[in-house]
Amino acid sequence: MSDMPARVTIKEVGPREGFQFEKGPITLEQKIGLVDALSDTGLRTIEFTSFVSPKWVPHMADAEQMVAGITRAPGVAYEAIWLNEAGLARAAALRESLALRPMFGVAASDEFMRKNTNRTVDEKIAELPGWAARYQALGMDWIDAGVMAAFGCNYEGDVPTERVLSVLETVESRAAEAGSRLGGIGLADTMGWANPRQIKRLVGAVRDRWPAVPVKLHLHDTRALAIANVVAALEMGVDRFDSAVAGMGGCPFAAHKGAAGNVTTEDLVFLCQELGVETGVDLDAMIAAGRLAEQVVGHPLPGKLKSGGNLDTYRARARAGAGA
Amino acid sequence: MSDMPARVTIKEVGPREGFQFEKGPITLEQKIGLVDALSDTGLRTIEFTSFVSPKWVPHMADAEQMVAGITRAPGVAYEAIWLNEAGLARAAALRESLALRPMFGVAASDEFMRKNTNRTVDEKIAELPGWAARYQALGMDWIDAGVMAAFGCNYEGDVPTERVLSVLETVESRAAEAGSRLGGIGLADTMGWANPRQIKRLVGAVRDRWPAVPVKLHLHDTRALAIANVVAALEMGVDRFDSAVAGMGGCPFAAHKGAAGNVTTEDLVFLCQELGVETGVDLDAMIAAGRLAEQVVGHPLPGKLKSGGNLDTYRARARAGAGA
Repeated sequence: MSDMPARVTIKEVGPREGFQFEKGPITLEQKIGLVDALSDTGLRTIEFTSFVSPKWVPHMADAEQMVAGITRAPGVAYEAIWLNEAGLARAAALRESLALRPMFGVAASDEFMRKNTNRTVDEKIAELPGWAARYQALGMDWIDAGVMAAFGCNYEGDVPTERVLSVLETVESRAAEAGSRLGGIGLADTMGWANPRQIKRLVGAVRDRWPAVPVKLHLHDTRALAIANVVAALEMGVDRFDSAVAGMGGCPFAAHKGAAGNVTTEDLVFLCQELGVETGVDLDAMIAAGRLAEQVVGHPLPGKLKSGGNLDTYRARARAGAGA
Repeated sequence: MSDMPARVTIKEVGPREGFQFEKGPITLEQKIGLVDALSDTGLRTIEFTSFVSPKWVPHMADAEQMVAGITRAPGVAYEAIWLNEAGLARAAALRESLALRPMFGVAASDEFMRKNTNRTVDEKIAELPGWAARYQALGMDWIDAGVMAAFGCNYEGDVPTERVLSVLETVESRAAEAGSRLGGIGLADTMGWANPRQIKRLVGAVRDRWPAVPVKLHLHDTRALAIANVVAALEMGVDRFDSAVAGMGGCPFAAHKGAAGNVTTEDLVFLCQELGVETGVDLDAMIAAGRLAEQVVGHPLPGKLKSGGNLDTYRARARAGAGA
């Protein structure tokens, strides 16, 4: 495990990924309360809302109110996402309060891309110059490329490594033609297809091809392998991960079959603690945020640490001779 | 991942570990139905009941009825456990129907041993000659040693590797004095303390010391690391694991805080499928058994595959061009 980084950066995406899945009513105050709790954990990036059409995602209609309502902690980047020009315009109007990021998401699977955005992968990449120009106008001359379904797709099956490299190479070329560089690569296991061996293969190939570009992983826990996949990525030197408080973003026990959330933030922080990898996150505060998330959504969420507890607490008790 | 075994042996322990935790009523017929479903999955060993005092574990009072009621599938070993001489006598009376195993469980932590059995570790080991004699009388001249809390203890904290080696060495010596050999070593992460690095350290030390003795792992998923710990063990060549259908054996969402069950059988089978490691288990049948387990206990259980689904199903659909 010698390539393991000394420190990792965790982006919390639970509020952005999680709230949109929930069936029950969640008040603006509850959402803000959860983001504020996350702000007190030591997390340095929180992706907390989406500037998307209220017609399609009614739960995100309060994006502007969320931006206005949260208490911004010093040193924390508050991020949001958008899927079209109108969304970016709404976010850009609030750029004093938001950390904008020049994201460009594309799938490694045509069928997934089509079902989600009514475009093929090539059609989506054809839109890249427009995005590059808009981001340049906002002072960002690079593209953060996110590849969805990078490890497999419910519609197209296994995704070959070469396909992901080819998509990224095309993105890089189009970006360069438009005057932007490839600033970051995100590999998303959107539908829970990755396994540790495949993580090592794809991450290795991407790092060989773009050794200077940071790689971030976004791993859903649909089939129980997310934490094992994180370990494989750490062993490959990956030091950037998305994760979701309490594993928000789909409840495997309810209506959202197969739509399990991201790897759970507090479980990821615990893993890192036990492996001696710094996160900057206070695990006890993170566990408390996980418990709050469960209260807010009103049903069980999959994260384990919120019931299992921090081993450091047991260690301290054992040292004090008090038992547990 | 070159030390990975080509094939692993999985012992299903869900019925034995799971039923005793349940608050709600579960009928004998339901329990038998679940064991019978497990018998049809390709699992080769099913530990399905305990011969323990009905006073302490009322849910296991029907052990004899379970033995009489299940349909024994050819090639499947049906195991049970016992904690004292009376329990062994009950099991031995049914030896035509049961696979007896000369088990001897001891903890690596005095405090855990005391809380569970009112004995210190040394006091427990002092009972070994009696067990060796009883097992020899049943035709078994070896001891399967199981070390509980081998990775850490809620009462005593981290457990050093040397402590586990020392306990096992003492067990082996006492067994040898009594005319039995050390036939197998089980390392149990009873309270969910293990992490992948520690798995490699302890398994490596045990295999160095006893290269010819098979090592089996029993990993609880209290803190989300069980599957990652399995991967680490596979990388060390371990090819025997306990696991529990649907993750039975404690529900992290209900009253049994911190008592999470074993690694989930169907999730483990899926991991092995994706890594190309043979289990002999039909994943679809195992997922169906996981769903049945959830029906039987009447509340959500933590396993993921029963909602995530078998990727091979999606692969077949994708090959057929049907989408999903």
